[in-house]
Amino acid sequence: MRGVKSIECFFSPRSIAVIGASDRKNTVGYTIFRNLLGAGKKVFPVNPNHPIIQGKKSFSSVKHIDREIDLAVIAVPARSVPQALKECMETGAKAAIIISAGFSETGEKELTGQIAGLIKKFPATRVMGPNCVGILDTYSGVDTTFFEKSRMETPKKGGLAFISQSGALGSMILDWVATQEFGISKFASYGNAMDIDEADLLEFLGADSRTKVITIYLEGAKNGRKFYSVAARVSRRKPIVVLKGGRSEETRKATASHTGSLAGSSSVYNSVFRQASIIQAEDLLDLFSIAKMLQEEPLPKGNRVQVITNGGGFGIVMADQLLMNGLRLAKLSKATVMHLRKEMPMATLSNPIDLIGDADAQRYRKAIEACLADSNVDIVVVLVLFNLPTLEAKKLSILRKARGKARKPTVVVSIGSGYTQKYLEMIERAGFTTFNYPSVAAKAISGIVSYAEYLKKTGKRK
Amino acid sequence: MRGVKSIECFFSPRSIAVIGASDRKNTVGYTIFRNLLGAGKKVFPVNPNHPIIQGKKSFSSVKHIDREIDLAVIAVPARSVPQALKECMETGAKAAIIISAGFSETGEKELTGQIAGLIKKFPATRVMGPNCVGILDTYSGVDTTFFEKSRMETPKKGGLAFISQSGALGSMILDWVATQEFGISKFASYGNAMDIDEADLLEFLGADSRTKVITIYLEGAKNGRKFYSVAARVSRRKPIVVLKGGRSEETRKATASHTGSLAGSSSVYNSVFRQASIIQAEDLLDLFSIAKMLQEEPLPKGNRVQVITNGGGFGIVMADQLLMNGLRLAKLSKATVMHLRKEMPMATLSNPIDLIGDADAQRYRKAIEACLADSNVDIVVVLVLFNLPTLEAKKLSILRKARGKARKPTVVVSIGSGYTQKYLEMIERAGFTTFNYPSVAAKAISGIVSYAEYLKKTGKRK
Repeated sequence: MRGVKSIECFFSPRSIAVIGASDRKNTVGYTIFRNLLGAGKKVFPVNPNHPIIQGKKSFSSVKHIDREIDLAVIAVPARSVPQALKECMETGAKAAIIISAGFSETGEKELTGQIAGLIKKFPATRVMGPNCVGILDTYSGVDTTFFEKSRMETPKKGGLAFISQSGALGSMILDWVATQEFGISKFASYGNAMDIDEADLLEFLGADSRTKVITIYLEGAKNGRKFYSVAARVSRRKPIVVLKGGRSEETRKATASHTGSLAGSSSVYNSVFRQASIIQAEDLLDLFSIAKMLQEEPLPKGNRVQVITNGGGFGIVMADQLLMNGLRLAKLSKATVMHLRKEMPMATLSNPIDLIGDADAQRYRKAIEACLADSNVDIVVVLVLFNLPTLEAKKLSILRKARGKARKPTVVVSIGSGYTQKYLEMIERAGFTTFNYPSVAAKAISGIVSYAEYLKKTGKRK
Repeated sequence: MRGVKSIECFFSPRSIAVIGASDRKNTVGYTIFRNLLGAGKKVFPVNPNHPIIQGKKSFSSVKHIDREIDLAVIAVPARSVPQALKECMETGAKAAIIISAGFSETGEKELTGQIAGLIKKFPATRVMGPNCVGILDTYSGVDTTFFEKSRMETPKKGGLAFISQSGALGSMILDWVATQEFGISKFASYGNAMDIDEADLLEFLGADSRTKVITIYLEGAKNGRKFYSVAARVSRRKPIVVLKGGRSEETRKATASHTGSLAGSSSVYNSVFRQASIIQAEDLLDLFSIAKMLQEEPLPKGNRVQVITNGGGFGIVMADQLLMNGLRLAKLSKATVMHLRKEMPMATLSNPIDLIGDADAQRYRKAIEACLADSNVDIVVVLVLFNLPTLEAKKLSILRKARGKARKPTVVVSIGSGYTQKYLEMIERAGFTTFNYPSVAAKAISGIVSYAEYLKKTGKRK
């Protein structure tokens, strides 16, 4: 089984063998085995030097386990990897993750060649790696990353999948994602990509019902043509957001010694991404802000943004960021202005709409409703200074009603200490996507607008 | 007294009168008086309608207070402001902050004219505002912002001054700054700038011993020529970082109705900033990241940055950001590479230096020391994945020694959940400037490099 379905075994195995499981703390073999045991999985230690590992009966070879193995996780020194992999393949393991490093990325040719030979000889076993940290599935609970739980938190369940060529960077990001309010469906780090590459994972995640948006950290696609054709297909169903590593001549060289693949030139990648409707993020923060926006908001019809604020300066800073990111400021229809003029005679009814400092929840609600109903507006950005004396922040929960049935992206931006964050979370629960920094919000909006434009161009959406 | 010294009274008054002090909760007059009382200041309520305000004897006019008033804070409706201000001036108040709005920014000409007349007639009283939230001094404890302490935190004491034309935006930023590890010396919001403007505040803060770096949110300088000449002078002694509001034709118009001043065109401001050696930030986050960098690190000799990492992908992302922000990647001398090759045979000794996943504190220390000693390196960026199994993060406190006497900026970047943040703070205490996002670190480094280049050009530094 070589199709995309064969990848399922990495994420939902019924049985797992850990080759190189260990009792020595702070080793990779110790932590992987411990994490999998802790997740309540059926997991077998393989270590010929110890009869018992972490209280479990240890096997001298994967061949001695009297059960079919769905997933083998290999964490032994590079020189022992070919033999370990061969035994897994001979015993019929459906999937193998090679955590170990020391192959093509360090210029090691012989061992790399042996593994390539095995992959060819035993096509029934799919291989991830070598030189990776494997996978995490928040729904099945399978986690082959080798980080102690005391050092790293696990993301919540959610709709973003994350593919990372770099294992360590990927794990660090997962740890950060755990502090954010959005969640992850599946994570995969595929390292040197000797069998499974980014295109295979894209294809698999494109069909995964838990995954709504796919994020990727990519240094260089193993097979550019395959990547392009899979991505162009998947991106029509699900948004793909990529952070490209190695964007200049100098950093391109560094990627060669990192994952053993020479990244293509920046301009080639830019054009591939554009043609495959892949949204490109500028940095780590944008990657997930754009993905969060794409997961939570409907696609906009255009790029005309209306800003609503209770603080003039904040509105101007936000509007500057929108324009700097290629968006346009909406121009309210005369009917909307006349309607709002009656409701709020003191407000500035332009773009930004300044509800002024004594705005209450009702004034916000009326302004949001009017903007969402205005056909000149594609997207609404609501700024709230929660700490103004006359604003009763808890009453802003009525904004839930303001969104009504309007299918237009509506985001709320604010920044501050605990008080502000508390009410911003309340607003998030009321159904709005929230951001702290105007620049980050503007980039996320720019991302969703790009995706909507891609779909329009490819004829998928009118 | 009209000189810059006269501004001191706003920040360190011995006596304060609050015109419009109130007992009605959630009003500006209530909160200002309450905040000042809470700070243990000698403060007198002025309100003709109540004999007692918040437990203190109230005066029907500032003239009836039998004490010289250093600072009067005026928070009454716009129409009552001229009379209140006149009384303050007649009684010899040295400084007055007009919090009230409803003057030039709303097109109100008569009241605006009356205030202008009083400022001319009584030059001994300096006036801040109208349409502002006044000032905050973390050292003297004076705080005239009208935000309930339950809704807003106060920044720590520190070396960054912050001037904001917009009061509400300024306050929101102060509240956010309170969650950061750097501190504020003085904050001033000057609104419509009828007397004191950004140039006066710049001059004053330039001479203020608590202030190391000056940050500004500026929509439009009241007097461009004065602003330029003061800024060009002050920036030779202290860095000035500005976030410009109203950077496009469309948002420039919005600033007119906000603070009543029409902002100049973007290209004019860009050139003024460059000529006056003012560093321009792109958004709120950058404004303070650049300022923090300038406060904490020595000035670099050039723009050649060496990256050190224990995760290859993280290093590549950081290097990409440095190059995107106009910095260069340093090229280590042969001697440095030979020295490090002996110490760490497995590391990739290029740029980034990849110490690889099993790096310990000693390897970091040796790499940092060697890079700081290399004359090909101007700035060092250290990336740490704290959650790698073999790294004993607490031992990284020895990096304190690695900086030694080298006068080169050295920053540490990492991101993650609680475990990582804990050790990143340890590193910050060990004397390094730390950042979470590669893009933010790169912009901060670009800011300090710009400032060093400005000083070199103006002949202040070789």
